[in-house]
Amino acid sequence: MTTFRLTPLAASLPATVPFVGPETQERQRGAPFLARLGANESIFGPSPRAVEAMAKAEHWKYGDPENHDLRHALAAHLGATPENIVVGEGIDGLLGYLVRLFIVPGDAVVTSDGAYPTFNYHVAGFGGALHKVPYDAQDRESPAALFAKAAEVDAKLVYLANPDNPMGTVWTGAQITAAMDALPAGTLLVLDEAYIECAPDGTATDLPWDDPRLIRMRTFSKVYGLAGARVGYALGHPELITAFNKVRNHFGVNRAAQAGALAALGDQDWLAQVQTRITEARGEIARIATAAGLSPLSSAANFVAIDCGHDGAFAKSVLDGLVQRGIFVRMPFASPQNRCIRVSCGTAKDLNTLAEFLPSALQDSRNQL
Amino acid sequence: MTTFRLTPLAASLPATVPFVGPETQERQRGAPFLARLGANESIFGPSPRAVEAMAKAEHWKYGDPENHDLRHALAAHLGATPENIVVGEGIDGLLGYLVRLFIVPGDAVVTSDGAYPTFNYHVAGFGGALHKVPYDAQDRESPAALFAKAAEVDAKLVYLANPDNPMGTVWTGAQITAAMDALPAGTLLVLDEAYIECAPDGTATDLPWDDPRLIRMRTFSKVYGLAGARVGYALGHPELITAFNKVRNHFGVNRAAQAGALAALGDQDWLAQVQTRITEARGEIARIATAAGLSPLSSAANFVAIDCGHDGAFAKSVLDGLVQRGIFVRMPFASPQNRCIRVSCGTAKDLNTLAEFLPSALQDSRNQL
Repeated sequence: MTTFRLTPLAASLPATVPFVGPETQERQRGAPFLARLGANESIFGPSPRAVEAMAKAEHWKYGDPENHDLRHALAAHLGATPENIVVGEGIDGLLGYLVRLFIVPGDAVVTSDGAYPTFNYHVAGFGGALHKVPYDAQDRESPAALFAKAAEVDAKLVYLANPDNPMGTVWTGAQITAAMDALPAGTLLVLDEAYIECAPDGTATDLPWDDPRLIRMRTFSKVYGLAGARVGYALGHPELITAFNKVRNHFGVNRAAQAGALAALGDQDWLAQVQTRITEARGEIARIATAAGLSPLSSAANFVAIDCGHDGAFAKSVLDGLVQRGIFVRMPFASPQNRCIRVSCGTAKDLNTLAEFLPSALQDSRNQL
Repeated sequence: MTTFRLTPLAASLPATVPFVGPETQERQRGAPFLARLGANESIFGPSPRAVEAMAKAEHWKYGDPENHDLRHALAAHLGATPENIVVGEGIDGLLGYLVRLFIVPGDAVVTSDGAYPTFNYHVAGFGGALHKVPYDAQDRESPAALFAKAAEVDAKLVYLANPDNPMGTVWTGAQITAAMDALPAGTLLVLDEAYIECAPDGTATDLPWDDPRLIRMRTFSKVYGLAGARVGYALGHPELITAFNKVRNHFGVNRAAQAGALAALGDQDWLAQVQTRITEARGEIARIATAAGLSPLSSAANFVAIDCGHDGAFAKSVLDGLVQRGIFVRMPFASPQNRCIRVSCGTAKDLNTLAEFLPSALQDSRNQL
C-alpha cells in the first residue's frame, strides 16, 4: 500500500463513475450494441452545419477561453445578455464548478431520491450533506417537497430537473415559478433544463435571467445532438455567472465544439426536425411498450420511462435481458421509480430492434417471477 | 449587491483568467493577428489522420468515460500499463484535479517564481499556500532549490516543468532523477512534460511509471498539434491514477478529441516532421533575434525566449509593439525572466512577419529608454 497524502475528503471518496459507459459494456460483452438507447443521446445527430463547422475547425489553436461568440449567440437567441451565460464542459462540468463554489464539507444540499446521480457525485466530492426527498405519486420531482426540505436543512443548493430525468415528467414554467414562492431565501435553485428543447411550450419559466434565486443549466448534448462535443451552459445572475471564472478550466471547452455548438444554434430548422422525430419516437416507444403489456409514462424528454409493472429487481431483469440482446438501455436508481426502464428515442431501425427483442426479454423475466 | 452563499474560499478568490486568449486581444484591437506566436501552439497542425478521425467522429455519442482506447494505445507506446494513465481535459484540467485531491486550505505547495500560472491558479483555487523559489542563474527551474523548499515547508506538491515554460531551458532525465534523491518523502513531484516531444533525447527520466514519488503530465496540445481538442494525460502509480476517478468529470473528454489523439499518436512520422520543423523554427527565431541585436536563449521546447537586454518594462514595451503590429507573443511574468519575450515556433510566413516587425518594435522601445 503506497500512501499518497490525499485530503481527508478525497481519501474518503470512492473511485467511482456515476454512469458506466456503453463502450465499457460493449467491451465486457465482446460485441457492439445493436441499438444505443441508454444515454439519452440524440441518435438523429447534430445539424449538418455543426458537423461541417467542427470538421473545419483549426484544432491546433486553443479554444477561446471566453467562449465569446457562442455566449453572444446564445444571449441573442434567448433574450439574455452574455453576462448571464457561462459555457462549460457539459452540464456535468458546470455542476461540478457550481458545487465547488458553494459547498464545503457539511453544507446541506437537497435533491430528489433517484434524480441525476452526477449532481450527487459532485456534492459528495465536495463533502456536502445530501438530503433527498421522494418523487411524488405521479413520478414527478416535487418542488414543494424539495423546497420544504431545503428550508428545514438550510440548504445552499436545491436541484430540480424540468423535464425530469429519468422519468420524463414535467412541470409547466408557471408551476415552477409559483412553487418558488416557497424557495428559502438562502437556497439557490439549480434548475436542470437539459431536455427543455423537446418539452412542451411553456415548460421554461419566464423568470428573468437575472433572477438571483436560480441558475438554469442547458446543453448541446441532448436535442442539439452534440453529446460528444461537451458543451453546456448555465444561465443566471451576472454576479453568479462571474463567480465561475474563479474556478473553471478557462481553456477547457474544445475549440471545434464551440464552433459546432454555434452552428447548431444557428440551424433551428434542424432542431425543429429533431423535435418532430423525438415526438414520433416517443409515440413509437409507447406503442412498443404497450404492445408488450407494459405501461409507458408520458414524457417531455427525449426518452420514455416504461413501467415494467413489478419491482426494481424485475425491471433490472428486463434491462439485463435487453442488454444481453444488444439493446443498451438504463433505468432509474431509486424505488419506486426503479420499477421502470428508460429507453431513449431512436431511429425506426433502433426501435424496430427494441420491438423485436422486448417481448422475449420480458418473457424471460416473467418466467423468473 | 446580490449575496450568494459562496464558500469563504470561493468568495475570497478573484474572478480571473490565467491567460488572456488571443481572440480576446483580437476583439480588443479590432483585427486578427498576422502571426499567432504566443500560446505555444503547434502552428504546423496535427496529423492529417487526426483531422480525418475527428471529422468522422459520431458527435451525437458521449465519449468513452474510460478513454479506453487512447489509454491502451498510450500504454503500448510508452511501455506503461493503462492503469498508469488518466486522460483529462488538457494538463490544465488534470492539474486542477490533482490539486483538488491533495490540497486543503493552508497546505504547502512549491513552484518556481514565474513558472506555469495555471498551476498556481489551481493551488489558489483550493486554498493552498504557494511557496516560490527563483530560477537559477541559467534561467532554469532549480530542482535542488524546489526540493529544499519543499522539505522546509513540508509541501504536499512541488511543480517542475521539464522542458521549462516560459524559458525553454531543460535538464536531462538523469539530472532530474539524481536531484530527486533530495525530494522529501512526503512531497509528490508534479513533473510537467508538456514539451517533452520536442526536447532532446534523454530529457525524460527513466524512472518506472509506478514510481510513487512523481506524476508526469503530458499532452496532445503541443507537438501533436491538438491544443483545441483538450486532451492531456497523467502518468503515475496506479493508486494515484485511480484517485482521479474520485473527482474527475468522467464524461469530460470530447469524443472526437479522443479519436483525434489516438490517430495522432499513431502517426509518428508526422510527429517526426513537426519535430524537424520545430528545430528549424527555433533556429530561425534565434537568427531573427540575433539580427535585431537581441539574445535568444537555447530552447528545448516549441518556443524561444528572447532576452531583450533590459528589464521587464522594456520587454513589455517590445511585446506591446509586436502586438500592435499584429504579432501575438507572450512573456514571462516574474523578474528577472521577464527581461525576455517568448515567441512560439511558426511557419516561414509567420517568422518572416516577425522578422519584418521586430526591428521597428524594438526601435520604438529603445526610443523610450
